[in-house]
Amino acid sequence: MQVGIVGLGLIGGSLGLGLQKNGFADKVIGIDANKEHANLALELGLVNEILSLVNAINVCDVFLLAIPVNGISKLLPELLDKITDKQIVIDLGSTKGKICSIVESHKNRASFIAAHPIAGTENSGPKAAIGDLFFYKKCIICNSQQSSKTAVSLAKKIFQSLFMELVFMDAEEHDLHIAYVSHLSHVSSFALSLTALSMETDEKNIFNMAGSGFDSTVRLAKSSPEMWTPIFEQNAKFLSKSIASYIEQLTLLKQYIDTNQLHKVNNMLTEANKIREVLN
Amino acid sequence: MQVGIVGLGLIGGSLGLGLQKNGFADKVIGIDANKEHANLALELGLVNEILSLVNAINVCDVFLLAIPVNGISKLLPELLDKITDKQIVIDLGSTKGKICSIVESHKNRASFIAAHPIAGTENSGPKAAIGDLFFYKKCIICNSQQSSKTAVSLAKKIFQSLFMELVFMDAEEHDLHIAYVSHLSHVSSFALSLTALSMETDEKNIFNMAGSGFDSTVRLAKSSPEMWTPIFEQNAKFLSKSIASYIEQLTLLKQYIDTNQLHKVNNMLTEANKIREVLN
Repeated sequence: MQVGIVGLGLIGGSLGLGLQKNGFADKVIGIDANKEHANLALELGLVNEILSLVNAINVCDVFLLAIPVNGISKLLPELLDKITDKQIVIDLGSTKGKICSIVESHKNRASFIAAHPIAGTENSGPKAAIGDLFFYKKCIICNSQQSSKTAVSLAKKIFQSLFMELVFMDAEEHDLHIAYVSHLSHVSSFALSLTALSMETDEKNIFNMAGSGFDSTVRLAKSSPEMWTPIFEQNAKFLSKSIASYIEQLTLLKQYIDTNQLHKVNNMLTEANKIREVLN
Repeated sequence: MQVGIVGLGLIGGSLGLGLQKNGFADKVIGIDANKEHANLALELGLVNEILSLVNAINVCDVFLLAIPVNGISKLLPELLDKITDKQIVIDLGSTKGKICSIVESHKNRASFIAAHPIAGTENSGPKAAIGDLFFYKKCIICNSQQSSKTAVSLAKKIFQSLFMELVFMDAEEHDLHIAYVSHLSHVSSFALSLTALSMETDEKNIFNMAGSGFDSTVRLAKSSPEMWTPIFEQNAKFLSKSIASYIEQLTLLKQYIDTNQLHKVNNMLTEANKIREVLN
């Protein structure tokens, strides 16, 4: 099987590494508009060959789209226009509603799989790629009833070959839930970074005092703006709702702290502790 | 040297382990109002012996106070009342202003060291104690000009024996800065947990989708309410200011997302990325 990967950053590069290593791909063909990234991906062994998209269309059995979600929204319908009925396209974007709606009525919709592997780090680019990124992580497949059995079956094989667990879900439902357990986490972390940075004139003084707790909560603030701005755009409706709820919780906690209502502060923290059981 | 540790949880227990292991303490004596914790600490080898505080005062050269900050505020003046001029007391609380002010005029103020080791995890109790918790972490000593040279010298020896790096600072300055790089992180994480929990009726559905990003940002929400409520109380002034700034950043980002001002969203995320350089 010839696997084409569009976008050779953290996700695309890690897929390239994994699908070579486990023998799933006879050849991994990399496609990236950024020539530096393309060369680096080849050099690092993330892909076997670099081709233009036009040339890749002639040889790839499946395309994996690992570019920012605004890029996917643009490229996906164009790519579906050009493929034969033997080719499959799988997107890996962190939003699913808009991407699914754009190709909902496309003649080749059945050849498309809307996927979201729940895997990543705060790093980006080919150098961020890691061979075990997907091991035992979830991969969400959306609106699979609109995809052909052949396409679903191939997607299953690809993700299972990387030791991922498949979860099937409606695209809107995905976007609502992922707003709360991923996109809001990023917002909270970006805002935390901005708050700490804006507070200090003498940066060294403050960050000298930062421990593992700050590192943990601010880690996602290192994430790529080019990747995350389009995600926030595409999931604006649900994300905005989740930020509003988050601000409400913060405002309430602040009010109880300001008015020394310690019993109520304690109650909120005790309630928040329940996340331990839920995640275990 | 006979070291008395008051409070045998994560911090006290880890100190007990470390100061036995590195040979600094001839004997570590544990003091804990919670008998279950005391017995467990002895069983786990965190301390060599359990004594009541009254009895420990007769035999310990130094006391390390590793209880919640409201407990420290209560116990510290009482303990300073009772010690001889050969004994030293070191508190390890996460707030320093109130604790320092309470004993500012105490006749034995010079025998007291106000310390804050920047080390911890989201876990608590004797079972959470780990032998390498303090390695290469910072320890902040506040208002050391009010402590005797002997006391400062002993505190240095203790913390350095655990491979900690000492930082000297004014207590108010400590509380202001730590609000931004530690206490606010905890608030952000508690509120994130509450937002995600309150959002879902079917909890499994949402947390099934949580990845390492959510884990990272919500980790501190597992922290002990008994420890953190008093910290929030004692640092209310600075913490409240930091939460207000945080809500401002969130509100701004939400507004740009709501009004599709993507360039401004991108600018905020790019600015937030600077935390990478600052922390490296």
